[in-house]
Amino acid sequence: MKTAVITVGKEVLTGKTVNTNLATIARKLNEIGIDVNRSIVIDDIKEEYYNILDFCDSELIIFTGGLGPTIDDITRETVIDYFKLETYLDKNILQEIKVYFDRIGVKMEDTNDKQAYFPKDSIILNNDLGTAPGAIFKGNNKTIVLFPGPPYEMLPMLEELIIYLKKELDIRLYSKGFRLVGTGESTMEKSLTGFYEKHALVNIAPYASIGEFKYVFTSSNEKELDATMSDFYSRFREYIYGDLNDSLEGVIVKKLAKTNMVISSAESCTGGMLASTIVNVSGSSTVFKEAIITYSNEAKIKYLNVKEDTLKINGAVSKEVAYEMAMGLAKVTSSDIAISITGIAGPTGGTLGKPVGLTYFGLSHNGVTKTYERVFNGNRKMIRTRATVFALNLIRKELEI
Amino acid sequence: MKTAVITVGKEVLTGKTVNTNLATIARKLNEIGIDVNRSIVIDDIKEEYYNILDFCDSELIIFTGGLGPTIDDITRETVIDYFKLETYLDKNILQEIKVYFDRIGVKMEDTNDKQAYFPKDSIILNNDLGTAPGAIFKGNNKTIVLFPGPPYEMLPMLEELIIYLKKELDIRLYSKGFRLVGTGESTMEKSLTGFYEKHALVNIAPYASIGEFKYVFTSSNEKELDATMSDFYSRFREYIYGDLNDSLEGVIVKKLAKTNMVISSAESCTGGMLASTIVNVSGSSTVFKEAIITYSNEAKIKYLNVKEDTLKINGAVSKEVAYEMAMGLAKVTSSDIAISITGIAGPTGGTLGKPVGLTYFGLSHNGVTKTYERVFNGNRKMIRTRATVFALNLIRKELEI
Repeated sequence: MKTAVITVGKEVLTGKTVNTNLATIARKLNEIGIDVNRSIVIDDIKEEYYNILDFCDSELIIFTGGLGPTIDDITRETVIDYFKLETYLDKNILQEIKVYFDRIGVKMEDTNDKQAYFPKDSIILNNDLGTAPGAIFKGNNKTIVLFPGPPYEMLPMLEELIIYLKKELDIRLYSKGFRLVGTGESTMEKSLTGFYEKHALVNIAPYASIGEFKYVFTSSNEKELDATMSDFYSRFREYIYGDLNDSLEGVIVKKLAKTNMVISSAESCTGGMLASTIVNVSGSSTVFKEAIITYSNEAKIKYLNVKEDTLKINGAVSKEVAYEMAMGLAKVTSSDIAISITGIAGPTGGTLGKPVGLTYFGLSHNGVTKTYERVFNGNRKMIRTRATVFALNLIRKELEI
Repeated sequence: MKTAVITVGKEVLTGKTVNTNLATIARKLNEIGIDVNRSIVIDDIKEEYYNILDFCDSELIIFTGGLGPTIDDITRETVIDYFKLETYLDKNILQEIKVYFDRIGVKMEDTNDKQAYFPKDSIILNNDLGTAPGAIFKGNNKTIVLFPGPPYEMLPMLEELIIYLKKELDIRLYSKGFRLVGTGESTMEKSLTGFYEKHALVNIAPYASIGEFKYVFTSSNEKELDATMSDFYSRFREYIYGDLNDSLEGVIVKKLAKTNMVISSAESCTGGMLASTIVNVSGSSTVFKEAIITYSNEAKIKYLNVKEDTLKINGAVSKEVAYEMAMGLAKVTSSDIAISITGIAGPTGGTLGKPVGLTYFGLSHNGVTKTYERVFNGNRKMIRTRATVFALNLIRKELEI
């Protein structure tokens, strides 16, 4: 099914807003086997809508943006004009818009009325988070979809569209996936030689972010899908930490809570990024009580009892200091797992023997303290982010997740 | 000048990559008065290039992506074919590509040769961070620009394009701006009533991010530009913390260093996000030595000497606890500025009296401790981010930046 996504709006064309809607829509359609083959961003000028609609030979055309109440919001009426569609005033929607304005305590303007006019036989997509409803309807045998621009308003409607399309096109597709950490893009691709061919009935899509991966498997054949996932799982068990809805910090907090364990961190170059990531999990307070950011040598001595000699002989960024930081932290906080990070985040401070990116980790668990060494690439922020993900992965492995 | 940005690539059409290049290019062009009036994402199929080039009546056409060495990378040759341009092999570029491969220790493939073929009279845009050079040339009286897809490879070439366009179009434009914090979108727009009209010779563009603003002023009239900026500055002095190249944490670290002051944080709901943000500034080690994340009541007592009674009577999220946290932190760390944060990040934990988002701040400076109360909107991560920005703004004001 030839599909076009048309984004309307000056904010996107001037670079004030990054077009994340396209990525969100494309991913979701991809999961049910529909490829977006063209995406266009246009200004909110009537002529531009006509140009683009003349140009598009797509069977499915999805608009985002231009559904609001202002004079600049012309998507609904222009598309209706273009396809010469009959309209009606949807009384329920009009009522809902009124209720919305009451709720937020703002006076409804007359122009808000226009948001309740729709092509006949439209499927209306309600908007609980704003005033502009979306719609699905037919025009010239094409399926036309209107979504509002704000991503959080668009998202629930996108879910409705997916359900509609699956039914309409009789798509029986199953989609599942894994999240992975601790492996690299080229390693994965190498290990997957022959895998794609072996599981040709399943669409396999990898998505990479800093230090992490997501693999999404989609197929109309549920048995094949499960077999593919089992095969993948047995090959990459050591890197897999959860399914698509999981986060690395989320599975860690869950496992710690289940096993009644408490975790703590002593951070130098990451400066609290690891602790902050753990705290972003709602409910983390049962497993995370405290952390210490020891950026200076003095703080490492004061809070963690790192020996002055250890710092002097080995330097703050060393295996020995990481070891003493983790051991000291475990003692001071009585945590079940104590993790330390000390590294050179750059851009300055690197030497020939200790380059920018060099980072040491200490992990104390059950009275045993282990250390790890890595050199990370990237700018200061990326090095710190990679160090944080690496630390989370150490914890995951220690917890046997 | 009618301008189109054409992004080539399956990664964007499948949603694996968000199209940030468009935003970057649009912003930069905007600063010299050129509006992008259409942007298109296409698949790397020869026919699609032809369709789009037939369709585009733009005078400036910028391609990103499809310049690499693989068989799928067909932007260069397809555009050359379309406009029927004569080409030549650029020996310097070929040599540079060879050097690049030597440096990264990878064997150069024969297909890499094609990256050195360009239309006659091209302006070559060198690529120090990859193998694919860009180019600017004329085709059918249009200005055609080829950029590689990876944003960090594209960015230096974009700067070159801006210089080229300013010269070619005789654009004498000046662009400066301010960064602001501590004000909201609607407050700003209200305060700016009449301002846009008063300074009609200057283009004024606001960009908002969580808790922060950037205002970019552009004009061909430098005197008008400076007058507008003075006017803006006198109106919004209290919110302005720097120019476009500054960051909030950056100006804070700079001022602290200049005045020989040391800062520390005691964080509960933000869990180290404030400390981590400060540490992201290279050179922050002179002003930031340590921080304590006291997520539990016990940690607040243990590290900061918060009184058990204070916690019992007022709860952990209270003005009184924020006060004692900051005061205790100042004492324990001997910091010149000690800041505390305690709040309800949600989504659970809120009550009628203490809703999700309620956050208290304590700031100790020169022996005086002040407290602040705010309720932030959004999900857990947004509340924590807003609290972090709010805390940074408290520090900024305390430092009279």
